[in-house]
Amino acid sequence: MRAAIMYKAGDVRIENVPDAAIVEQTDAVIRVSRACICGSDLWPYKDLEPTPGGRPMGHEAIGVVESVGSQVRRFKRGDLVVMPFAFSDGSCDFCHEGLQTACSHGGYFGVGMVGGAQAEAVRIPLADGTLYKLPVGEDDALIPSLLTLSDVMGTGHHAAVVARVQPGKKVAVIGDGAVGLCGVIAAKRFGAEQIIILGHHPDRIALARDFGATDVVRERGEAAVEQVRKLTGGTGVHSVLEFVGSEDAIHTAVLATRAGGAIGRVGVPHYEGTPASRQAFYSNISVGGGPAPVRAYIETLMPDILDGKIQPGRVFDRTIGLEGVPDGYQAMNARESLKIMIRP
Amino acid sequence: MRAAIMYKAGDVRIENVPDAAIVEQTDAVIRVSRACICGSDLWPYKDLEPTPGGRPMGHEAIGVVESVGSQVRRFKRGDLVVMPFAFSDGSCDFCHEGLQTACSHGGYFGVGMVGGAQAEAVRIPLADGTLYKLPVGEDDALIPSLLTLSDVMGTGHHAAVVARVQPGKKVAVIGDGAVGLCGVIAAKRFGAEQIIILGHHPDRIALARDFGATDVVRERGEAAVEQVRKLTGGTGVHSVLEFVGSEDAIHTAVLATRAGGAIGRVGVPHYEGTPASRQAFYSNISVGGGPAPVRAYIETLMPDILDGKIQPGRVFDRTIGLEGVPDGYQAMNARESLKIMIRP
Repeated sequence: MRAAIMYKAGDVRIENVPDAAIVEQTDAVIRVSRACICGSDLWPYKDLEPTPGGRPMGHEAIGVVESVGSQVRRFKRGDLVVMPFAFSDGSCDFCHEGLQTACSHGGYFGVGMVGGAQAEAVRIPLADGTLYKLPVGEDDALIPSLLTLSDVMGTGHHAAVVARVQPGKKVAVIGDGAVGLCGVIAAKRFGAEQIIILGHHPDRIALARDFGATDVVRERGEAAVEQVRKLTGGTGVHSVLEFVGSEDAIHTAVLATRAGGAIGRVGVPHYEGTPASRQAFYSNISVGGGPAPVRAYIETLMPDILDGKIQPGRVFDRTIGLEGVPDGYQAMNARESLKIMIRP
Repeated sequence: MRAAIMYKAGDVRIENVPDAAIVEQTDAVIRVSRACICGSDLWPYKDLEPTPGGRPMGHEAIGVVESVGSQVRRFKRGDLVVMPFAFSDGSCDFCHEGLQTACSHGGYFGVGMVGGAQAEAVRIPLADGTLYKLPVGEDDALIPSLLTLSDVMGTGHHAAVVARVQPGKKVAVIGDGAVGLCGVIAAKRFGAEQIIILGHHPDRIALARDFGATDVVRERGEAAVEQVRKLTGGTGVHSVLEFVGSEDAIHTAVLATRAGGAIGRVGVPHYEGTPASRQAFYSNISVGGGPAPVRAYIETLMPDILDGKIQPGRVFDRTIGLEGVPDGYQAMNARESLKIMIRP
């Protein structure tokens, strides 16, 4: 089958690889109907060291079940399913608590023996715990929005949960990528009164406003903090959703948070120590977040997608075939494209 | 009047200073009936640069109202009151939210024009918002426990609140000082099933066990983390209460926390960036806490003291007069005394 393999920073190729196949009897194999390029794929696209053998890419997909192992109970050939970006057994303590990204037997796609979703097919370990059946057809108009349940919408929601967004509260969203925009949707969905997006790309800002952002801060660093404070009567926001993962971004997050507020960070941290530790302390600010348990959030969010209340699928601004993936990475990395959908 | 003044590290003197007096009409002056030396007083005792004029010390007291300004409504001469370690107006948004340590008009004792409580009397700014009337007499047997509502019991409780201690959960308490021991009380009070104290002073450990600690870890650093994991079936604890404030302590806290867990830090941080930021991220651990809004917690905790359900006053192991304060600092700094009560 054809699959996207990254060999080093800037070097993604579509290659022939062995077909995805059942390895454990708890596996399923899905034929990928839609996949994505993720903002987090751009980190290795920027800095991956030369990797002999390459790294299979992609962790978001909707697909049709092609085969299942003998121990898979909940899925059968032909089911249309969405996969979360992490697999999980659905039965350990962490899964029961709704933190599937800490599953005792779970893991991530594109690591070790597990392939990626930017491919014609992908093996899904622990299929019963991992997959979620979709109540629509493969070409339904809601498919793009349902596809965001694989990662970006669930991740935006997680940031809002951790940052304790509540009705009537003030929220800042740091980052205008696809996940940031989903963070705006999540903040709005929780009833935030003021949603300030920090970003500067005009198209993304326009979409953020459509999703419910009330204010835009185009500055960075100290100037951004000053603007957020100005927009909030001097106090800062109750909740910051941090989607970037840079030291500057989290520093800005701490300084923009109101005393007693919370930061939900879902941008993979590219810093050693969380900065401004004393400011956070003296203001009783909490910093939390991490890989979102999107599997848990599918049930929460899907009804709002089916009802048309939220439309996270609007973050996709380009659809490509598998052969277009290398150019797709380039376009997203150059910020020419917000988020790319793949139809293998 | 006589008051304790610190001039530099290791140099505390009892001196004659101008009598505490009403400055603003919202002030009260209380005659100090009981005060304390606090673990946090030991930071300047270790590292205060030479300070011309000196710094008035002490922020915990029970006292009798001696005089009130014309705008004080809730207190009158003769009332027995407890003071929280921070003053607050009781009327701003933060006070209404129960975060009096972020009060728009609040502040700390021993700073600027506001004196300290290790003195014969102390001026209480914003008396109506700050003070809390006690329902017992000045020599009641419960006075030591009620005195801990000024700081250490409320601070231990705050750590437990922020660390989301819940019935049946596993908790680690880092630090066996008076606040750490109050953290044990707080964790027990919230129904924690397992309470692991990290410390090594035999008397303190014994008291921690009396207060509800189920396990003791005497190791430090990596070895302590390993022990906590061993005691919790490999996963770590749901909640860590961090009372030390050193970089090592918070690092240990992160590594000892179970995925999805929370750290409540109330030890004044003596580090720039919160370490192990990535580990915290990948485990979805939140780090929060700061100066405890003990004013808010007095109402919560006092009934349990009056009922004899909790006995935080047991942390006092020595009572001295005002003239004994310099020796008291020395004894606490040498860890010869756990916590000292002052009867001026």
